[in-house]
Amino acid sequence: MNTSEFRRRGKEMVDYVANYMEGIEGRQVYPDVEPGYLRPLIPDSAPQEPDTFEDIINDIEKIIMPGAASPACTELETVMMDWLGKMLELPKAFLTENAGEGGGVIQGSASEATLVALLAARTKAIHRLQAASPELTQAAIMEKLVAYSSDQAHSSVERAGLIGGVKLKAIPSDGNFAMRASALQEALERDRAAGLIPFFVVATLGTTTCCSFDNLLEVGPICNKEDMWLHVDAAYAGSAFICPEFRHLLNGVEFADSFNFNPHKWLLVNFDCSAMWVKKRSDLTGAFRLDPTYLKHSHQDSGLITDYRHWQIPLGRRFRSLKMWFVFRMYGVKGLQAYIRKHVQLSHEFESLVLQDPRFEICAEVTLGLVCFRLKGSNKVNEALLQRINSAKKIHLVPCHLRDKFVLRFAICSRTVESAHVQRAWEHIKELAADVLQAERE
Amino acid sequence: MNTSEFRRRGKEMVDYVANYMEGIEGRQVYPDVEPGYLRPLIPDSAPQEPDTFEDIINDIEKIIMPGAASPACTELETVMMDWLGKMLELPKAFLTENAGEGGGVIQGSASEATLVALLAARTKAIHRLQAASPELTQAAIMEKLVAYSSDQAHSSVERAGLIGGVKLKAIPSDGNFAMRASALQEALERDRAAGLIPFFVVATLGTTTCCSFDNLLEVGPICNKEDMWLHVDAAYAGSAFICPEFRHLLNGVEFADSFNFNPHKWLLVNFDCSAMWVKKRSDLTGAFRLDPTYLKHSHQDSGLITDYRHWQIPLGRRFRSLKMWFVFRMYGVKGLQAYIRKHVQLSHEFESLVLQDPRFEICAEVTLGLVCFRLKGSNKVNEALLQRINSAKKIHLVPCHLRDKFVLRFAICSRTVESAHVQRAWEHIKELAADVLQAERE
Repeated sequence: MNTSEFRRRGKEMVDYVANYMEGIEGRQVYPDVEPGYLRPLIPDSAPQEPDTFEDIINDIEKIIMPGAASPACTELETVMMDWLGKMLELPKAFLTENAGEGGGVIQGSASEATLVALLAARTKAIHRLQAASPELTQAAIMEKLVAYSSDQAHSSVERAGLIGGVKLKAIPSDGNFAMRASALQEALERDRAAGLIPFFVVATLGTTTCCSFDNLLEVGPICNKEDMWLHVDAAYAGSAFICPEFRHLLNGVEFADSFNFNPHKWLLVNFDCSAMWVKKRSDLTGAFRLDPTYLKHSHQDSGLITDYRHWQIPLGRRFRSLKMWFVFRMYGVKGLQAYIRKHVQLSHEFESLVLQDPRFEICAEVTLGLVCFRLKGSNKVNEALLQRINSAKKIHLVPCHLRDKFVLRFAICSRTVESAHVQRAWEHIKELAADVLQAERE
Repeated sequence: MNTSEFRRRGKEMVDYVANYMEGIEGRQVYPDVEPGYLRPLIPDSAPQEPDTFEDIINDIEKIIMPGAASPACTELETVMMDWLGKMLELPKAFLTENAGEGGGVIQGSASEATLVALLAARTKAIHRLQAASPELTQAAIMEKLVAYSSDQAHSSVERAGLIGGVKLKAIPSDGNFAMRASALQEALERDRAAGLIPFFVVATLGTTTCCSFDNLLEVGPICNKEDMWLHVDAAYAGSAFICPEFRHLLNGVEFADSFNFNPHKWLLVNFDCSAMWVKKRSDLTGAFRLDPTYLKHSHQDSGLITDYRHWQIPLGRRFRSLKMWFVFRMYGVKGLQAYIRKHVQLSHEFESLVLQDPRFEICAEVTLGLVCFRLKGSNKVNEALLQRINSAKKIHLVPCHLRDKFVLRFAICSRTVESAHVQRAWEHIKELAADVLQAERE
């Protein structure tokens, strides 16, 4: 949608809201629809080509309004999570359609998704161990539970361990900053020998530091064999898996119990919208379910409806699936794929600029939209370069450490980024690098 | 703002967004402002009388845009939480201004606020006990930790206990559905005798079931004396405390470590916006703090800035304080007070209608906008009445149980509710009640 259409459509939406308020007494207090009303009214997957805004808005009045906030809010979310799951070619076990045991839910952030997965895994492990040994207390079990992630995993994984009151151990990643079978296996054997109970593994696809990928095809089977919950965190990279050429990066997700990525990061859906799928809904609801009278409803035990409040930490929810519905239809799958491809192409353009300059080095494989680079030389000179770049305020870079190296990260992430911006940024970085190197020689 | 002004202003906002996008290359990538820039630019409390929309919009360009998303997002939140705290006459210890140790943060829901408070209390208790007895493991302590709330507390309190891995015990409430000193004291003595470690109490002001109030002035001093964290949950009722005539309901908050209510429930701020204050910021940040390189910044240890990511479960945040800023200024404190008073008056109007009909009874004191009522008679007849009311779909009621009684709840909560709606609802309920009673006799 270009700016001039945005002006027109935005103003139509303002009138829609005002008209709604003016006519509210004519609307029904409670919807007439039955549970499950929504799915048959919309296609079972996202359109390949864009729909028009007109079509989408007409569907709001026709499909959403009769279902009001409830059950429309829940039902659209379930279907949108199926749409998105199919865009990623997630295994069928993660989808809700066909009355499977899995399904998707929108969380606020990847941190919450990791925590929710860890809590579900914790409850499941406690139940399993208490079933085998009823004399074990919850505390006695929790003392021995141990979770794992790569040493490149996001800090929110460590935080989930803190909140959940369980140990979290970092598995040393390999030369490509990936978690591999051997290192995980080694930790498992050591910890089991020490009497600990491994129960949860977070594998990261697209780490924050350098967009490295844990080896799911190695790690997954170990988790299944050792009865550990496998949570796959693809917060940033997940969006790319809608492109067939990047889908192989998700291979091994079939071994996972839960999978999460953030459409708000790279799929044009506004913050917040973190998409989480589980293979077994009852694992989540088993960890959280409480049913006071004021939250009971007539479809409580019918199995016909989804109570997302049992899937998450907050009780209240916003109607976030509307954002997904609008974006998926306004762009179409092809439009979203084109958007991802453009960003990846621009990061490779930046990578090749860096590679052409012998003063610089690339520090990790460039797979998606992130380029890790640095001046060949000391951390000090790179810290000085970062300082100059960020002080100049023409671009903004966030650094990281890769092992003992201080590394600069060039991230393609703006909706409106073009090749010209990348070229201009590189010219700017080169100039400042020359200054830094000059200053060092003096 | 009436609908016609909404149409005009809404369309101006659409143009503002479009102009922003068109002119984005002319804006700075990174703001020039220094930490703390925002507070001196705005008043230190909310206006009594409404500001014009014009004034507010001008301030966006003048005050917010130069601070971009960061630090403006954080700094406006800190100041808005001070504004709101002052509207409630919270003790100064909860405010950030004057460089105190306390402060406010926007959470997504009261459930999250309770959980965050419980986790902070858990960490604090573990640290305290390990300082005294270094040989104690975290698991050994957690096994003995016990939290308390009234038997009328919201289910999210029990859920926080589940997530936090600690025991949560319900204290029997008194005849007015309030937690009192004697019952709490009794539980403490029994649990201490059994070797447990009481560490956390949730007092509710305005319970979900019947809007009852735990006795803070009794419970507070016990918590302080016994070294238990006191969290006060006023999710619904909190908004009313901006009116001097209801402020006494908050008396005793001075004993609390944390306090929370939801402006999205009754203060005209759109969902979600849950306001939480703590007396000691370091209690929260101590429970959650982790600092990877990619989240470090140059003001890390200056004490000049607030890192809200250490105050909450998610990492990312939305700019929710803008909603508060707009609402507080568009209504003024007096406008918000008038809104609360109108609702309370309407609930008393409904109460007096119920009291005039000898077939009905009022089941709990009407203090704010909730009226608990029922037909004198069996639960069965009241369940039948509720069923008829909700099936007719002209109004919608959510019931509760008070002890063994099935009770109907009439809640005044719409922004646009008027006396005519209340009168019409009562006529409707009376008609259906007559039908139910008639059917019972047949």
